[in-house]
Order: sequence, then structure tokens, then C-alpha cells
Amino acid sequence: MDLFEAMFTQRAIRRFSPEPVPDELLRRVLDAAIHAPSGGNNQSWNFVVITDSDVKSQVGRIYKQAWDDVGLSRFANDPDASRARIYRSADYLAERMGDAPVLLLACIEGSSGSRSLATGASIYPAVQNLMLAARGLGLGTVITTVHKHRETEMKELVGIPDEVETAALIPMGYPEKGTRFGPTTRKPIEQVTFRNHWAHNIEFLPHSEI
Amino acid sequence: MDLFEAMFTQRAIRRFSPEPVPDELLRRVLDAAIHAPSGGNNQSWNFVVITDSDVKSQVGRIYKQAWDDVGLSRFANDPDASRARIYRSADYLAERMGDAPVLLLACIEGSSGSRSLATGASIYPAVQNLMLAARGLGLGTVITTVHKHRETEMKELVGIPDEVETAALIPMGYPEKGTRFGPTTRKPIEQVTFRNHWAHNIEFLPHSEI
Repeated sequence: MDLFEAMFTQRAIRRFSPEPVPDELLRRVLDAAIHAPSGGNNQSWNFVVITDSDVKSQVGRIYKQAWDDVGLSRFANDPDASRARIYRSADYLAERMGDAPVLLLACIEGSSGSRSLATGASIYPAVQNLMLAARGLGLGTVITTVHKHRETEMKELVGIPDEVETAALIPMGYPEKGTRFGPTTRKPIEQVTFRNHWAHNIEFLPHSEI
Repeated sequence: MDLFEAMFTQRAIRRFSPEPVPDELLRRVLDAAIHAPSGGNNQSWNFVVITDSDVKSQVGRIYKQAWDDVGLSRFANDPDASRARIYRSADYLAERMGDAPVLLLACIEGSSGSRSLATGASIYPAVQNLMLAARGLGLGTVITTVHKHRETEMKELVGIPDEVETAALIPMGYPEKGTRFGPTTRKPIEQVTFRNHWAHNIEFLPHSEI
């Protein structure tokens, strides 16, 4: 698959077919993940691949508790229709996280003092590679972090050591029938990009003027 | 370019040709960035594109100060040859950050209390899209976060508001003559991946047994 096609059609998939994910594809997705950049190429990442039904159910239970703790399902009735749609879909996933064919926990090593925003520069590029690779192979994913509200329980369940933190929980599987990849809608570049200073929204020169 | 080829040849590029980056490519790279996923599709990201020579010089000066503050150049003599090579190259970049044709600051909104590791889930996937798109277009990049040690100065320089934090500084340009994209070396998947529990390093079933 073409690089740009993958990036421009990577819709969040939250409804999965029960069809299992072959190990061969799982390996390819993980191989993409570990080829991402990390600070000083330290590769201080770990991935826990959960395919056992019992463990998945327990992850699903913890995720649902965290979801309820945070009360995010209230956004399912948000006046913003696009936001409401996302949260209805996320609410659906929160009820069924444990049913996804594969659950992936992306983790990062580091002492707790060093776990700041910038630590994420050494794990989320790998998560994005993983999800793009999945897209390229016809597998759906969505990045979630809500389980962080029950981090201790989640770590205990799968035996993650103290000096390692979870960064994302990613369900993966073939999209449910009727669920499609497709173009995503975003705010325009000009609205979120500045040139040289925050006071100057970017303008691009047409090719002919370069 | 093929998705997997881009991911598997995305080497960190730290030596740039002075050749300018056409606005058309800059736009394409930013378009890839904003098509990344973010929490609840909130897109609370901003990008500052720095192409003005004076502003680039000042960013370069701040970066070099941060680099010296942290004393990372000591790793240029690390007994681990691969590590020493990376830090020699990073040291070279720290001396010349302001000379890169484009500097990109990726930023994320959020109150300071909410800026934790997981906040990164809403900005670093965009940074990785940006860098993969650059790779696909023949442009080199490297993700850096060292300037965070001089965050206040950096924000003041380009007018970034209080409620926004920088997540990465990415120099971008055509690779210097003799600098090549190419396959990256990584620890094997089996060393960093577990199945169902941290006690079980992953094993993959050969295709025939699935």
C-alpha cells in the first residue's frame, strides 16, 4: 500500500470482526513498530500482545471500569454531532474491548521522574507505525489511553514491572462488516500551523512562485 | 512510496543539504501530520514552521545551549560504538541546528496538569506521520526533544502561548551529499515483545500452523 494512502485513510476502527489475526500479520505489525525512531535509538519499548480470551476479558473489565471512572460516555450526547459520534463509538468499544481479536499494550521503560510528555517521543512513533502497518494489511486499530486511570491494575494483570509504564492500549482486528477505512476529516493546515512566529498563520507559496 | 519501505528505511538524518524545501512539499508533510489520530480526534496540535534564517539561528542557539546543559556530547565517546556514532552525529547537529533548511516545532495544547506521558498520544503520531511523509518525499528529518531543557526560552522566541507545550523540534531538509536513507537496525521483536504476560516472550506460529 502507498504510504500516503495509508496515512490519509487511517480511520479509527472500534468495531471488529471476530476473525482471528494471523501471527504472520501480527509479526509484520510489530516489526513496523520496532523500526520507529526513539530517543538516541534507545528502543526502551516493550509490547504485550494479548490473544488469550481470559486475559482479554480481564483487560476489557479494567478498561470499562476506567471508562466509567472518567465518565467519558457523557460525550455520547454532546451537542457537537461529530464529537457525539466519536464518543458513541468509543462507548461501544468500552463495552466490548475484551472481544477484540488482539489487544496490544505499548509500554516504555524509564524511572517515574523521567516520564513526561517528551518520553512519549520514544514510544508513540512506534505506536503510529504499528497502526499504519495494520491499516496497510487491512487490520483496524484505535489508540486508547483511558486504562491509564487504572494503570496499577492493568500492570499487575500482565506482570509489567514497576520501572515500565504503559503508553497505549490498542485493540486490533479486521473491521466488522459494514465498518470501513476511509478518508478522515481534519481542521485545515492553515488553522493549526504558523510560520516563524505564533502571530503568523502559515501561507504557502504556489509552486510557480518558488 | 510503499508504506513498509518508508517505515523500514526511515533513518535519522542529521546532515542536511542547504537546498531549500519547496512549500509544496512542506504542505504535503504537514497534511500528513494533521491526518494522524489524536485523543477523541481533538486535534489539539499546532505546528510552527521556521524558515527565516534569523529565527532559525536563534532556535539553533537555544538548542545548543540545552544540548550543553544536559551534557549529552559525553556519549560521543561511549564504549558502545553504535551509541557513540549516534551521539557524534547528534553533536554535529547540535552545532548546526540553525542551518537546517526548515525547523518544525510540534506543539500540544493542554493545561499543565494534564501534560503527562499519555498526552503524547495526541501529538507524536502526528510527528511520526510528518517524518514518514518527509521520507516518502526524499526529505530527511530527526525527532529531537533536547530543547525542552530550555522550553521557556524556546516558547518566548516564537510566541507560543502558556497553555501550549512544545513536544518535538524536527529539522528537515534534503540529506547532505553522502548521507543516505537506508535500513535501520533494531533489537529483535522477540526481545521486546511478550504474549499475554510479561513472563512469556512472544513466539510466532509459522503460517502453516495457523
